[in-house]
Amino acid sequence: MDSQAEALLERVGALLRTYLTSSTDREAPVVRFAGPEQLREAFRQAGVSLELDEPQAPLEVEALVRAVETTLAYSVRTQHPRFFNQNFAGADPVAVLGDWLAAALNSTVATYEAAPVFTLMEKAVVARLARVAGLSPAEGVLNPGGSMSNLSALHLARHRALPEALREGMHAGPRLVAFTSEQSHFSLERAMALTGMGRESLVKVPCDESGRMRPDALEEAVRQARDQGARPFFVNATAGTTVLGAFDPLPELAEVARTHGMWLHVDGCHGASVLFSERHRHLMRGVEAAASLVWNPHKMLGITQQCSVLLVRHPGMLRECFSTRAAYLFQQDKHHVEEDLGEQSFLCARRADSVKLWLTWKLRGDAGFAHRLEHALELAAYTAERVRQDERFRLAFPPSFSHVCFWWVPPELRPLEDWSAPEVHARLHQLSVAIKDRMQREGTMMIGYQPLAGRPNFFRLLFINPAVTRDDVDTTLELMDRYGSELA
Amino acid sequence: MDSQAEALLERVGALLRTYLTSSTDREAPVVRFAGPEQLREAFRQAGVSLELDEPQAPLEVEALVRAVETTLAYSVRTQHPRFFNQNFAGADPVAVLGDWLAAALNSTVATYEAAPVFTLMEKAVVARLARVAGLSPAEGVLNPGGSMSNLSALHLARHRALPEALREGMHAGPRLVAFTSEQSHFSLERAMALTGMGRESLVKVPCDESGRMRPDALEEAVRQARDQGARPFFVNATAGTTVLGAFDPLPELAEVARTHGMWLHVDGCHGASVLFSERHRHLMRGVEAAASLVWNPHKMLGITQQCSVLLVRHPGMLRECFSTRAAYLFQQDKHHVEEDLGEQSFLCARRADSVKLWLTWKLRGDAGFAHRLEHALELAAYTAERVRQDERFRLAFPPSFSHVCFWWVPPELRPLEDWSAPEVHARLHQLSVAIKDRMQREGTMMIGYQPLAGRPNFFRLLFINPAVTRDDVDTTLELMDRYGSELA
Repeated sequence: MDSQAEALLERVGALLRTYLTSSTDREAPVVRFAGPEQLREAFRQAGVSLELDEPQAPLEVEALVRAVETTLAYSVRTQHPRFFNQNFAGADPVAVLGDWLAAALNSTVATYEAAPVFTLMEKAVVARLARVAGLSPAEGVLNPGGSMSNLSALHLARHRALPEALREGMHAGPRLVAFTSEQSHFSLERAMALTGMGRESLVKVPCDESGRMRPDALEEAVRQARDQGARPFFVNATAGTTVLGAFDPLPELAEVARTHGMWLHVDGCHGASVLFSERHRHLMRGVEAAASLVWNPHKMLGITQQCSVLLVRHPGMLRECFSTRAAYLFQQDKHHVEEDLGEQSFLCARRADSVKLWLTWKLRGDAGFAHRLEHALELAAYTAERVRQDERFRLAFPPSFSHVCFWWVPPELRPLEDWSAPEVHARLHQLSVAIKDRMQREGTMMIGYQPLAGRPNFFRLLFINPAVTRDDVDTTLELMDRYGSELA
Repeated sequence: MDSQAEALLERVGALLRTYLTSSTDREAPVVRFAGPEQLREAFRQAGVSLELDEPQAPLEVEALVRAVETTLAYSVRTQHPRFFNQNFAGADPVAVLGDWLAAALNSTVATYEAAPVFTLMEKAVVARLARVAGLSPAEGVLNPGGSMSNLSALHLARHRALPEALREGMHAGPRLVAFTSEQSHFSLERAMALTGMGRESLVKVPCDESGRMRPDALEEAVRQARDQGARPFFVNATAGTTVLGAFDPLPELAEVARTHGMWLHVDGCHGASVLFSERHRHLMRGVEAAASLVWNPHKMLGITQQCSVLLVRHPGMLRECFSTRAAYLFQQDKHHVEEDLGEQSFLCARRADSVKLWLTWKLRGDAGFAHRLEHALELAAYTAERVRQDERFRLAFPPSFSHVCFWWVPPELRPLEDWSAPEVHARLHQLSVAIKDRMQREGTMMIGYQPLAGRPNFFRLLFINPAVTRDDVDTTLELMDRYGSELA
């Protein structure tokens, strides 16, 4: 290692250790708000341009250290107990270490010969997750994100419905139609376009009041598609929708899927982790009927980005769909080629995303994951109750799972009866934007908002981070009330 | 941070620093060869099962430290000067640090609000890479691998050829046909299946003796496809093929593409990095005519896995193809939404892969990247000459770029005249397997072999790692000769 790299390793290593050991400190701002121009200026002040110069001269170690300091200072502290903005809040530092280990070894999991330990670790986590889900024996693969896992599931389901498509493409058969709820993740829509089946062939099935797909509406939609001469082949059931955290009714959807010979895929990116909790795993009842399940440990299990697992009940199908028998990589005459994972995924070279899950799981145990889940759900329940009893707030939806969706209500509208009256609607919509602006500028907290199902912008508190306490919830609500009051 | 995580951070942090500072040591074995059962036993000896138990109990920090030690001991040392097996040899430790920084901050680059610094860093590297390639202004996106980038390019090209496909799928139009060389990467084939265009609609165009796509053969293939009533829409030109490192003739292919209204995509995953070298960048001549280029800094620039950049000349097209306007994430009424990157890629949440490239680039400068390239190409030339003049070896192909492909020749066949005689063919084929087996067992080096274009298994020495010296090449060849002699 050259002396510059060695010096940087020393200096940046120390900065990162300090960052991690204080990453959940409440005294630090969640974010030091800055627009693009301010950020560029901050880097200039640190003596490093954010842009790459032409030509880019080699900089000194000291300049790079300042760049890393600036990056740490202006990046969002996603482990902070008042970062509720996304479902990757509160990564476990053990997972960070697993990520570091994978980066230091810099291999890919395509072949056993180049990544023997990581190959077996991937198989170990896939096998155990399948058992936890009641899907064992299942094959599986780790993907860099849920979008990739959903895409792969769609491809596999098409292969079952229309095996000629692999060779001949979509012209080999009739129009194929997939079904998903209107509140499911947008990756399904992107995937339908990418797979050449077309966005219009994704039917968005209506939900009930809690955001769960209605089995009767699915049945009806399937009938309509058939009437139009198309072939229904795929149902995506969501376990933990993005905005409301709703769980589609798996047993009923499985029944419809079975009746019509469709592949049942469960998008459990967010919600599948509940399987670790004896108390709450009933939410996933019916998952054992799924043909495939995607589960993102990088959400509720605190694993760092990215760690998404696709489990598949049809043995050999991943390989059937993805293998191209590349002679330069998967030589059949070398040692342990049967262990190679690179023929089971769309991506050839994949980062070793299993190691961070493996390491975290070994240190925390099943019980640690269960505790993480139950802590989050307990806090969500506490918050929902707190909001319900306080006329300064109003639930926008019945609380469900780890999500609490609500408005701050300005004094003149309390108690809020009807959010749908046009002037009330407009006021709530705009206030969420203004309150969020204040949060960001003050750096006290980060919470997402969005409209849904006719409701104006509401805040969504997402519970995931084990560092969050009831006090944090109280502080968050009080701050929100203060900002709202000042703005109203 | 809890005390267990803190202890692990301390202990594992120290192990990783030691590993990195000694990662290029010649005294260490490249690999400590072990089959799956031996590996499982090694972990058992360390007091940790490689499998996840049922239930998995939480383990002590000490056990986890031993697991990390075992992982380091049995993983392939890809920075070792005698690891020639893959084109991710010799990662720059500065890139490892960038990866660590991204993991510690654990965000994604979907939105500016959650990843302000990483968003601007991604834009900075995209903008500068486009300028280096002469493709500026171009839009771009970082993907977790070249397969994903090639897939995205194919999707964009289809959108240009058949805009209705996004909504209506492939049934909206005629069969679309894509062209690539018979020696191009298999990801194109996977992508054609995944996009619903079908593997059969990928025409594999013959190569010349050096592995370059033949423009006349492309022209002929396009004509044939038209005659069959299909619509040619996409040509993939490879800059640095996987096995031979060949560069397709871009100006000639661009001309064919232009004549027939096809999208020219350049798969420069491996070879585009040569653009940094004034001396060798002529290999990429013609790239400025490309509609899209994929470039993987995680190959020849020493960036850790994964770091793949797709550059696109059609402004707005990434967004047109991928945007779904998800209201929960890309709120139009929040700050700096125009900076959000999540609508420009198939993946929504993406790891911040730009930061490791940014950091490495800033420390090494353009000159550092150029030096890395030129060092590799100088060593490849040295090796090719060395092999050519030594009757113990025989070049399997004319040397090209960073790749040297050759056989070790057993004494009774020297000088090797005709490799194609059946018994010679069989002997060479089998000897490569046996020699590789010895390398792995002794842990002295790792080199890939494969058959191609009728030739029996040959070794491919891939030059990428800046730690490799001429002495390493000499040692490698002598070791290969020793193993061969003992086995022959």
